[in-house]
Amino acid sequence: MDLRARKRIAVIGGARAEKKHLKRAADVGRLIAERGAILVCGGLGGVMEAACRGAREAGGLTIGIIPGDDPGEANPYVDIAIATGLGFTRNSLVALNADAVIAVDGEYGTLSEIAYTIVYGKKVIGLDTWDIKGVHAAQSAEEAVSLALED
Amino acid sequence: MDLRARKRIAVIGGARAEKKHLKRAADVGRLIAERGAILVCGGLGGVMEAACRGAREAGGLTIGIIPGDDPGEANPYVDIAIATGLGFTRNSLVALNADAVIAVDGEYGTLSEIAYTIVYGKKVIGLDTWDIKGVHAAQSAEEAVSLALED
Amino acid sequence: MDLRARKRIAVIGGARAEKKHLKRAADVGRLIAERGAILVCGGLGGVMEAACRGAREAGGLTIGIIPGDDPGEANPYVDIAIATGLGFTRNSLVALNADAVIAVDGEYGTLSEIAYTIVYGKKVIGLDTWDIKGVHAAQSAEEAVSLALED
Amino acid sequence: MDLRARKRIAVIGGARAEKKHLKRAADVGRLIAERGAILVCGGLGGVMEAACRGAREAGGLTIGIIPGDDPGEANPYVDIAIATGLGFTRNSLVALNADAVIAVDGEYGTLSEIAYTIVYGKKVIGLDTWDIKGVHAAQSAEEAVSLALED
Repeated sequence: MDLRARKRIAVIGGARAEKKHLKRAADVGRLIAERGAILVCGGLGGVMEAACRGAREAGGLTIGIIPGDDPGEANPYVDIAIATGLGFTRNSLVALNADAVIAVDGEYGTLSEIAYTIVYGKKVIGLDTWDIKGVHAAQSAEEAVSLALED
Repeated sequence: MDLRARKRIAVIGGARAEKKHLKRAADVGRLIAERGAILVCGGLGGVMEAACRGAREAGGLTIGIIPGDDPGEANPYVDIAIATGLGFTRNSLVALNADAVIAVDGEYGTLSEIAYTIVYGKKVIGLDTWDIKGVHAAQSAEEAVSLALED
Repeated sequence: MDLRARKRIAVIGGARAEKKHLKRAADVGRLIAERGAILVCGGLGGVMEAACRGAREAGGLTIGIIPGDDPGEANPYVDIAIATGLGFTRNSLVALNADAVIAVDGEYGTLSEIAYTIVYGKKVIGLDTWDIKGVHAAQSAEEAVSLALED
Repeated sequence: MDLRARKRIAVIGGARAEKKHLKRAADVGRLIAERGAILVCGGLGGVMEAACRGAREAGGLTIGIIPGDDPGEANPYVDIAIATGLGFTRNSLVALNADAVIAVDGEYGTLSEIAYTIVYGKKVIGLDTWDIKGVHAAQSAEEAVSLALED
C-alpha cells in the first residue's frame, strides 16, 4: 500500500448537522474509500465523524487534523489523528493537506476552509453548502466524489 | 495614551485592488484613526496598505500581522509589525485581534478572514465585498466605521 | 515617534518566578525603555509582566504575544496585546518579533524560545537562565541590555 | 490494524547529520517499527529521513509533519505527510503528536522540540544530543526505544 501515491480528499462541514447531511457525509466518505483515496478532515464530530465512519466502513484510511492538543480528542473513526493546538486556525491545514475538498452543509468554519482551499488553488465541491463563486455544486455524493477525483 | 482601552478595527481586503477600492480603504483607515481606534490589518499591500496610510495620515496607530518571518516585510505605514511565519494561516490572527472587521473588496483570502471573524463572534461590515449572510453591507466609509464602532 | 525604526528586544522567562528574578526582569524592562527600544514578550505573568511593568514605568512601549484567543488576557502592562490562539506554539512568534532576546530565569518554555531565537539567527543574552552553548551570559541587567542592543 | 491503539514515538534531529548519527536514527526507526509503534518526525531529511527509512524497511508506518505547504516535500519514506505551512513553528506539533520523543544528535531546532516535549509533559530520550536536565540519556538505539515505550 503506497500511501503517498493515493489522492487525499478532505470532507468539511459542521461539528453538528442534521441527519440528512450526516447521511450524505457518510456516503461521501464511503465513496472516497471505495475509490482508493484517503479521507482528510478536521477530526471532530458531525459531518467530519460521519465521513470518517463511512470511509472506515469501506476499509478506507482517515486523517483528522484537530484543533486541540491531544490526538485522543479525534472522533473514533479517525485513523491518524494530528493534534495542532491551533484552535480554528487549523482550518488552513485541512485545506493544505487535501488534493480537493468536498463541503457538506456547514457554517462559517466550513466557509473559512472553502476559502483556504481556493486560496491554495485546489478544487472545492459543494453539497448543500455555501453557494458562492468557486464552489462546484454537486447533486449527489457520487457526483461530488467523481468531481473531486477528476484531474 | 492608554492603548489597551482603545478599540481595534481590522480592515481586510486584497493585496491588489482597483483605485476606487484603495481610496475607500484609505478613507476607512483615516476615519478609524479620527475616531480614536487602532487599525489592525494583514500588513501587506493593496487595501491593507491604503488603510494604514489613511490611518497614519490622520495620526492613528496601525498594527500589521504579516504572513512572513520578517517584520520588515510589512508595508511602510504599519507602526507595529507582527511577523507570524504562518503564511495565509495568519488570517485567523487578524480576526482574533480586532473588535470588529471592515472588508473592502477582496477575494478568497478576505473571505477566510470574514469567516473567521464570524466564527469568533465579531461583527463584519462590508464595502463592495462578499455579499453573504453575516456581512453587514455599508454604503460608505463613514457608515462602515460607525457600524464597526457601535457596541 | 517612528516605531518601525526602534529596536525590539524580547524578554523571556517563566510565568512564575522568584522575587529576585522578577526584580531583574523589571530592571531589564526599564533599561530597554530608557534605551529607546520596544519590549516584546509572551504577554503573561511572572517575568513577562515584571519586564513590561519596568518598561512602562520608564515610559516605554510593550508588545505581548499571547497564547490565547483574547487580547484581554495579556498582563496589564502590555500596550499592544497580540492574541494568537496558538498555545505554547506562539513561542516561535516571540522570537520572530525581536531583534535580540534576553532570558531571565525560566524553564522549558523559555528554553524553546531560546532555541527558536538561535534558529532565527538572533542573539540570546542570559541572566540566571539555561547555561547552554549559544547563550551569552550577562552578569547584570545593564550588561544584558547593552549586549542586546549592540550590533 | 488499529492505528489509534498504537503508540507514537517521534524521532527528532537535524536535517543534516554525520553518518554515525544517521545509522543510529535508522536503527531507532527500525526498532520503533518492530515494536509496533508509529514513527512521527518532522518529515525532512537527515535524521528524520534515516529514521523513516529504518521504520519503513521494518514494515512500520511513518508520519512526517513538515514545515512547508506541500505534502510532497516530505522525504520519500514518510507514509503520511502533513503539511503545516508553519515553518519552524511546526516543531511544537511534532511534540504534540508523540507519546515520547527520541532525540538523535541535533542542534537548535532539535532543542526547541526537546523543550516542547517536556512542556507537554512527555518523556525525551537522548542519543548523543543536548545534555540538559530532563533528557534521559540512552547508550544505544535499543535502550532508547525501550525507554520511549515504557509507561
